[in-house]
Amino acid sequence: MPRTQRQIVLRRRPEGLVVPDDTELVSVPVPEPADGEALVRITYVGVDAAARTWLDDQPGYLPPVQIGEVVRAAGIGVVEESRCDAYAVGDVVTMLAGFSEYTIVRDDLFCTPVDPEYVADHQAVLSLYGPTGATAYFGMHGVGKPQAGQTVVVSAAAGATGSVAGQIAKIAGARVVGIAGGPEKCRAVVEDFGFDACIDYRAAQGGQGLDAALKEHCPAGVDVYFDNVGGEILDAVLGRLAHNARVVLCGVISSYLTGEHPGPSNYVNLLAKTATMQGFNALNEWEHFDEAFAALRRWDLEGKLVHRETVYDGLESCVDALNGIFTGTNTGKMMVKISEP
Amino acid sequence: MPRTQRQIVLRRRPEGLVVPDDTELVSVPVPEPADGEALVRITYVGVDAAARTWLDDQPGYLPPVQIGEVVRAAGIGVVEESRCDAYAVGDVVTMLAGFSEYTIVRDDLFCTPVDPEYVADHQAVLSLYGPTGATAYFGMHGVGKPQAGQTVVVSAAAGATGSVAGQIAKIAGARVVGIAGGPEKCRAVVEDFGFDACIDYRAAQGGQGLDAALKEHCPAGVDVYFDNVGGEILDAVLGRLAHNARVVLCGVISSYLTGEHPGPSNYVNLLAKTATMQGFNALNEWEHFDEAFAALRRWDLEGKLVHRETVYDGLESCVDALNGIFTGTNTGKMMVKISEP
Repeated sequence: MPRTQRQIVLRRRPEGLVVPDDTELVSVPVPEPADGEALVRITYVGVDAAARTWLDDQPGYLPPVQIGEVVRAAGIGVVEESRCDAYAVGDVVTMLAGFSEYTIVRDDLFCTPVDPEYVADHQAVLSLYGPTGATAYFGMHGVGKPQAGQTVVVSAAAGATGSVAGQIAKIAGARVVGIAGGPEKCRAVVEDFGFDACIDYRAAQGGQGLDAALKEHCPAGVDVYFDNVGGEILDAVLGRLAHNARVVLCGVISSYLTGEHPGPSNYVNLLAKTATMQGFNALNEWEHFDEAFAALRRWDLEGKLVHRETVYDGLESCVDALNGIFTGTNTGKMMVKISEP
Repeated sequence: MPRTQRQIVLRRRPEGLVVPDDTELVSVPVPEPADGEALVRITYVGVDAAARTWLDDQPGYLPPVQIGEVVRAAGIGVVEESRCDAYAVGDVVTMLAGFSEYTIVRDDLFCTPVDPEYVADHQAVLSLYGPTGATAYFGMHGVGKPQAGQTVVVSAAAGATGSVAGQIAKIAGARVVGIAGGPEKCRAVVEDFGFDACIDYRAAQGGQGLDAALKEHCPAGVDVYFDNVGGEILDAVLGRLAHNARVVLCGVISSYLTGEHPGPSNYVNLLAKTATMQGFNALNEWEHFDEAFAALRRWDLEGKLVHRETVYDGLESCVDALNGIFTGTNTGKMMVKISEP
């Protein structure tokens, strides 16, 4: 009699937040690995805005999740059976998995064994030593390139990527101003993550309030802006750029639910300030992930880099966690614990 | 009895096109050069969109022209009197002058003697061997960096900067598609300037028509876009970017008259395509102008670079020439002949 596992499959493409009829929690047999495959018991899945975009019927850097398929998410887990030379039973691996208790992996780009040095803390692997940490590293260090004394602004500063990106800028000697929603997140950005200041965009209540707050906190202009949100926050920061500024486009969370992308009219400031706005995707830097993780590990061990996690419990809370990314329930990396490491 | 000259002074800040009451043609004494100065008889003034922006009360890289001052424009002329070691009588110089028959120059950044090799053709100096040519060179060669076989799009392709920028991309081995207004300009872009194709944005009649034309002419996407116009053309090209594309922001002629800059909603494609949008100003490359002119001169002599001029005659036509930049009367560099070289 085959073992069964639970997983969450897509039943209907959501519009906005994911509502109950959009997904279904099902029980299915735990799959048997074929030749060249291994079976992984998932311990944690990471949840981010990208996971929501994969539910739309839009081609992106990964194909859309199809109706009936497991909702896709990055995860970490332990190899339970292996018919693949790349993985031994007991290995800890990160992989592109889904809202599921088990998954099948192969020896390919989407599955990476975790160095034993990091194994003890599965949460930290999802926070720092995976695509999230790599995104913060390559976006800030590789594209933003802040110099000592420069002013750096990071939006979604309490989030998984923003909190790490801002700390990387601090390590480079920059003055770092976060933007986040609500007093508790702003407190965490300054007190926990060590930013120099944090603007509460909810309190600012839109364009003019944001402009005033940016003027107060960035009197000499913004040299580097790490943008996770788009929308009016991007427009406001574009209006405050310093000469030769660099805008790093990392995400557009303000519009993932609507599909509408209001264009930032202050883009013309790129011309006036001879500034650059650059989109990037850490996955294009796959071959250099080791460099990123080595730097992050060094700063982590030196106590220069704080990571925090918001952990939901159990497979059945996955959809709530995904919606929470958009309603703002997380500080640091959002993840769901599926089983004991 | 002092000699008199004519010049055009600003009487009122224009809204939109320059109308008769905005400026006045006046007669004033020809100035006497003081110690360290020289008097230049202007032969041609160049007219471009920047000259119109200087009439607005907006700080930019140069201060606004004040009411009562001569309307500012780049020019070329011959030194008639000199009390400055840098210039001898008979020298040909380019300078930041104005709509005027004479001007005073000093030994500073804003006045450059013209190498005798180029002297014969004052028009070519304004087309190629001044800020216009340098803008095309640094924008395309230095920022756009087209590779052989890539697809390059240039807007305002029949204009002074666009026509040269596109030819520089052709020299680099790229496939070059222009965007211009009307059949005669499109003919010139292809037949005179040697672009591979030209899209008539007037015939395209806006967003969807532009999208279709771009899809037809750039089936593999746009690797480099040299943007002189902003507005819906920028938005349409952003929607057609290839991976790792580079958008060079050179001007925003679509909105200089209105001051409104509609934001391009397709900026999010910079993220999806890991592309870059960069503003630049050739004046920041002042120290490297020699490099630009040497390259332009080599291509000019080799017959690889065509320059054309639209020449209005006489100081009294300067305002018409300035308005013509926005109504689209010029092919190649717009200039006004003030006196015989």
